[in-house]
Amino acid sequence: MSPFASMGFAGNPLDRLSERRGDAAALAALRESFCARAVVFVGGMPVLRPNGADFLVLHALGEACALAGAFEPVLLGRDEAGPVYGVMLPEKLLAGQPADPANSFVDQRRMTIAGRPDLIVGDLRALATAGALSEAETAILAQAKAVLHWHASHGFCARCGARTNVAQAGWRRDCPCCGAQHFPRTDPVVIVMVTQGDDCLMGRQKHFPAGMYSCLAGFVESGETLDEAARREIFEEAGVRLGAVDVLASQPWPFPSSLMIGCRAQALSREIVMDEVELEDCRWFSREEARAMIAGRHRENLQASNPIAIARRLLDHWLIEG
Amino acid sequence: MSPFASMGFAGNPLDRLSERRGDAAALAALRESFCARAVVFVGGMPVLRPNGADFLVLHALGEACALAGAFEPVLLGRDEAGPVYGVMLPEKLLAGQPADPANSFVDQRRMTIAGRPDLIVGDLRALATAGALSEAETAILAQAKAVLHWHASHGFCARCGARTNVAQAGWRRDCPCCGAQHFPRTDPVVIVMVTQGDDCLMGRQKHFPAGMYSCLAGFVESGETLDEAARREIFEEAGVRLGAVDVLASQPWPFPSSLMIGCRAQALSREIVMDEVELEDCRWFSREEARAMIAGRHRENLQASNPIAIARRLLDHWLIEG
Repeated sequence: MSPFASMGFAGNPLDRLSERRGDAAALAALRESFCARAVVFVGGMPVLRPNGADFLVLHALGEACALAGAFEPVLLGRDEAGPVYGVMLPEKLLAGQPADPANSFVDQRRMTIAGRPDLIVGDLRALATAGALSEAETAILAQAKAVLHWHASHGFCARCGARTNVAQAGWRRDCPCCGAQHFPRTDPVVIVMVTQGDDCLMGRQKHFPAGMYSCLAGFVESGETLDEAARREIFEEAGVRLGAVDVLASQPWPFPSSLMIGCRAQALSREIVMDEVELEDCRWFSREEARAMIAGRHRENLQASNPIAIARRLLDHWLIEG
Repeated sequence: MSPFASMGFAGNPLDRLSERRGDAAALAALRESFCARAVVFVGGMPVLRPNGADFLVLHALGEACALAGAFEPVLLGRDEAGPVYGVMLPEKLLAGQPADPANSFVDQRRMTIAGRPDLIVGDLRALATAGALSEAETAILAQAKAVLHWHASHGFCARCGARTNVAQAGWRRDCPCCGAQHFPRTDPVVIVMVTQGDDCLMGRQKHFPAGMYSCLAGFVESGETLDEAARREIFEEAGVRLGAVDVLASQPWPFPSSLMIGCRAQALSREIVMDEVELEDCRWFSREEARAMIAGRHRENLQASNPIAIARRLLDHWLIEG
């Protein structure tokens, strides 16, 4: 199996129905469908229904809309059971004490929905890390999180400052004042497995879990190719120059709206000149050390990133190659 | 040589100095540098200085700022000769009749800068197509065009509607009202060379030059991998299902802020079901036909896309492989 199979947030099974987004009659029929369901977010966190030992992420659309008030559901797409929407609840519905605070992926602030003790508020990254949901559910939540965050942070026209209106079933916002059309953002990031012979380059940021090291990464800027962005980022963060850069795989990373583009690159130099603002540490690791990190038996107790992340899959890919 | 070498808009030679963008003293010293230069845009078009048979794209920063008024120059980076900025002139400076209307890449509206008959207004795509500028100049203009367009269309906070302020030497806009930080957009697009045996799939949009066919392309959406976006776009536009999808190269495409990510993919089916809203035609072309299109001897006078575009390089790559 490919080391890039079944990554977190990838594998969305929905037909996005993008050709229907401008068709008012088709949209109305979908909204009225008896089978219409919704994933629901509040304050950037998914709302779940405990169901025995499991959690359900899909709610009846009507019920979600009743909680959401004026929010216009975003059409995410359709699977064999019917249409699926993304719905965002007003943050004022967040209340203290969740139904089941023992679960590690419940929102750390221990919140639930006011008046709905049957619902819990989760943390998407923690849910994915815990493997608490299916690949399809995790991917649909990732799609919804990115586009709902965009609505929450883009209610006004960046060109003229007026309030904008939802259009295209939630995939555009239109300005009634200056006529500008705004589309959801997807921010490309290069994440690079830099290797030289039997060694690979990984670093850690201060906010990483203790002992965790990962591939270096950064946003692609205006006027850059992926290759140029990878070279710039690795030189800025580690002072290392790159030879060939290849793209191996990609992963949605909805925190809030990144697209991680996983590359491998040959280092042309070995000396590390670390950017101490961005990184807390950066070193070369041998294949043996990397295998020990993954197995949880590194002599300094260092860890590789979680298997949901493309950083880990890039490491796995390099280890398989070698 | 790689079929992806020296594409239009790639190959930017500037050190972007991103670590200096928050350093007021360093920024002041760069701005005061005797060698500071600027590329200048008006209404999305570069302002050039004719110089014999050539055109100069770099202007003295002081002169550019004098024309620009209150616009705060964006620090693009530095080359061995000194810092380079992007400067945008107010559109009211556009005036009729250029200095040299005979050049095909002069703005089609035949405009120049009021009171400055020594300057001409060009069209970036036409300049690149004509090969009128060096690779480095074209790439610097592409970087500037994308980030200057972003400033021109993002003067207000998308979160609260207030006017925002330039920060980080032009690489961020900050909201004084709600505290939001906004960054330039880069919109990832998948552009896909779909092949099956000796045939490749190309289509044309109504606005393409007469007879021109190109690879199919579309924006990556929230929650999609590159692979998933390629599969969705090709199925939506042509009804063709894909097997393996690989990323081969990428290209900045500042119209206004795209990053073209060039893929190749195996088709799993042959029947074309064309999206008649997006496309005017879509067909399979044999290698022989594709070679004839490039050579300008296709029997129906069909054309491949221009060599500046990654679409053409993807075609070249496929022809070389075969």
